[in-house]
Amino acid sequence: SRSLNLAVIPGDGIGQEVVAEGLKVLSAVLPQDVKLETQDYDFGAKRYHATGETLTDADLAQLKRHDAILLGAIGDPSVPSGVLERGFLLKLRFAFDHHVNLRPSKLLPGVATPLAGQPEIDFVVVREGTEGPYTGNGGTIRKGTPHEVATEVSVNTAYGVERVVRDAFARAHARPRKKLTLVHKNNVLTFAGHLWTDIFNRVAQEFPEVTTDYLHVDAATIFLVTQPERFDVIVTDNLFGDIITDLAAAVSGGIGVAASGNINPGREFPSMFEPVHGSAPDIAGQGKADPTATVLSVALLLRHLGYDAEADRIDAAVAADLTERADGPARSTSEIGDALASRVAG
Amino acid sequence: SRSLNLAVIPGDGIGQEVVAEGLKVLSAVLPQDVKLETQDYDFGAKRYHATGETLTDADLAQLKRHDAILLGAIGDPSVPSGVLERGFLLKLRFAFDHHVNLRPSKLLPGVATPLAGQPEIDFVVVREGTEGPYTGNGGTIRKGTPHEVATEVSVNTAYGVERVVRDAFARAHARPRKKLTLVHKNNVLTFAGHLWTDIFNRVAQEFPEVTTDYLHVDAATIFLVTQPERFDVIVTDNLFGDIITDLAAAVSGGIGVAASGNINPGREFPSMFEPVHGSAPDIAGQGKADPTATVLSVALLLRHLGYDAEADRIDAAVAADLTERADGPARSTSEIGDALASRVAG
Ligand SMILES: CC(C)[C@H](C(=O)O)[C@@H](O)C(=O)O
Ligand SMILES: CC(C)[C@H](C(=O)O)[C@@H](O)C(=O)O
Repeated sequence: SRSLNLAVIPGDGIGQEVVAEGLKVLSAVLPQDVKLETQDYDFGAKRYHATGETLTDADLAQLKRHDAILLGAIGDPSVPSGVLERGFLLKLRFAFDHHVNLRPSKLLPGVATPLAGQPEIDFVVVREGTEGPYTGNGGTIRKGTPHEVATEVSVNTAYGVERVVRDAFARAHARPRKKLTLVHKNNVLTFAGHLWTDIFNRVAQEFPEVTTDYLHVDAATIFLVTQPERFDVIVTDNLFGDIITDLAAAVSGGIGVAASGNINPGREFPSMFEPVHGSAPDIAGQGKADPTATVLSVALLLRHLGYDAEADRIDAAVAADLTERADGPARSTSEIGDALASRVAG
Repeated sequence: SRSLNLAVIPGDGIGQEVVAEGLKVLSAVLPQDVKLETQDYDFGAKRYHATGETLTDADLAQLKRHDAILLGAIGDPSVPSGVLERGFLLKLRFAFDHHVNLRPSKLLPGVATPLAGQPEIDFVVVREGTEGPYTGNGGTIRKGTPHEVATEVSVNTAYGVERVVRDAFARAHARPRKKLTLVHKNNVLTFAGHLWTDIFNRVAQEFPEVTTDYLHVDAATIFLVTQPERFDVIVTDNLFGDIITDLAAAVSGGIGVAASGNINPGREFPSMFEPVHGSAPDIAGQGKADPTATVLSVALLLRHLGYDAEADRIDAAVAADLTERADGPARSTSEIGDALASRVAG
């Protein structure tokens, strides 16, 4: 019999609530013969305040033994900005070489968008996850004086860029429209820009069926609100990907439904799946959080592990549920989870 | 009698056409006693192809003698990406210390927006113009090999950040809502982020009447499409400013009406005013380009030089013209310029 050994990190704020629903749906959708084992980890603000720890080497060794990681949200106003982000979220991405940060955007029927005219939106952003301005390279001199200088170094390697570009081409090739757009700022960031552009153009020759396209990141934000239907797959740098995926989430139904995967495609390390939204401490513990983004992240997790039929069932259940919800009364976090669990089981 | 000595850079593509209309409106609005002198400069793709030059020291010495610079657009597909951007546009901003890049966004009556529900949009972005990832610091090793490494260095100084933050606080203080939002990514870019945040918080104490606010750049893109009315003045880094001002232009009527000023507030150097749009070679020479963004850039130019009443007249003329245009037939570039010129003269 098969098994799925999952690390669960509920985290802070609404993280607990949404992860509970994600697990509910996961249990309901998994075939009978798959033994689901979960282990909870207490990372986040509470542990940081109690111990000063964010993510230790021992923690990483523990996490490494799982097949995948499901995370709710990490972050709390009581912790200085950057501590949990750099000390936990980014540390995990770097330690487990999550170089493919996958963020699908699909405007589902019945879901409200801030855009007029209900455009067709169905694209995936492949965001590089281990390089660019996220490496933590840089520093400060003369801190706190009128002569302070602070630098941030974006590091880009042929190795790092090529592997994520290849992943994106393969994903584009597998989709009906077969279109891939590179988003960068190669007219200003010419060193990194030329590296990305050269590799993109070179790999393109191996994928003659994939239509390619280039947009500066500033122009990409315009098209995301004026012509989102033009996008199929986007590949981009870590920071540009951070920015455009929040915008993409906003136009395609909001961060309540935006899922993401921090993927190590070669499976040397467990991949991590999480909703794009944060810990939302203002609504935590009130049953108001929408667990849909977490449930969709569970679908990404299942797809990564080869449970494609189960992932499809979750996607279909979410689409049906959102259509139903559009005309119905507001539902609580657990009511949404219950509805989705019964749909995927049925 | 007074004089206004203007450097005019029509540039590439639609640049010629839109600048002609900008000058038409400028001539019409200026008081009789102001002598307008203009000198044309041939910067852009043609000169680059003919001479290999983008902007020489002699050019800069010439340009320095003017009161201000009006630019149409620079850029053409025949020139490799980055050459004119780094060699002309950015070189000029750096040489003339244009550290305040001013980009107002106002959704005018009658103007179409991709957002549903016609929200109220009226804010100004103060984008830093001489630091950040735009400095050209960085490099490439092992170019073209599988071991290539390309870096981009964002350089941020207390001097550079404080002056633009002060400028933004002063602008926020002068507006009715008196609200200033800092946009950065201080949870990831912690070196630069802390410098920006510390200076912002320190200067805030000198402006107790200004309400302050902080947003990560990714979250800012969400609010720009879901709650644009929350913004009054935004201050941000060079690259984040590049990205969010294109998005801001898109939601507030498109780049056809987005104006910008590259300002040296102390007037040691002439400031440069230009539409946010590019050279649009696909529609060049057809009388299809909307000169409104250039005309609004002329208003920013006049305001910078102290001609506030004249700037107000241009703004009012544009608002009236856009309302009229919303219900009328399409008009050509010069028809729009004529209509605006007669409104400001009348
Ligand atoms: C919380 C932060 C470190 C993170 C990022 O910038 O990558 C978040 O914005 C995201 O997009 O996952
Ligand atoms: C053309 C390019 C160098 C420029 C920039 O990135 O600043 C443009 O996008 C702008 O916003 O003025």
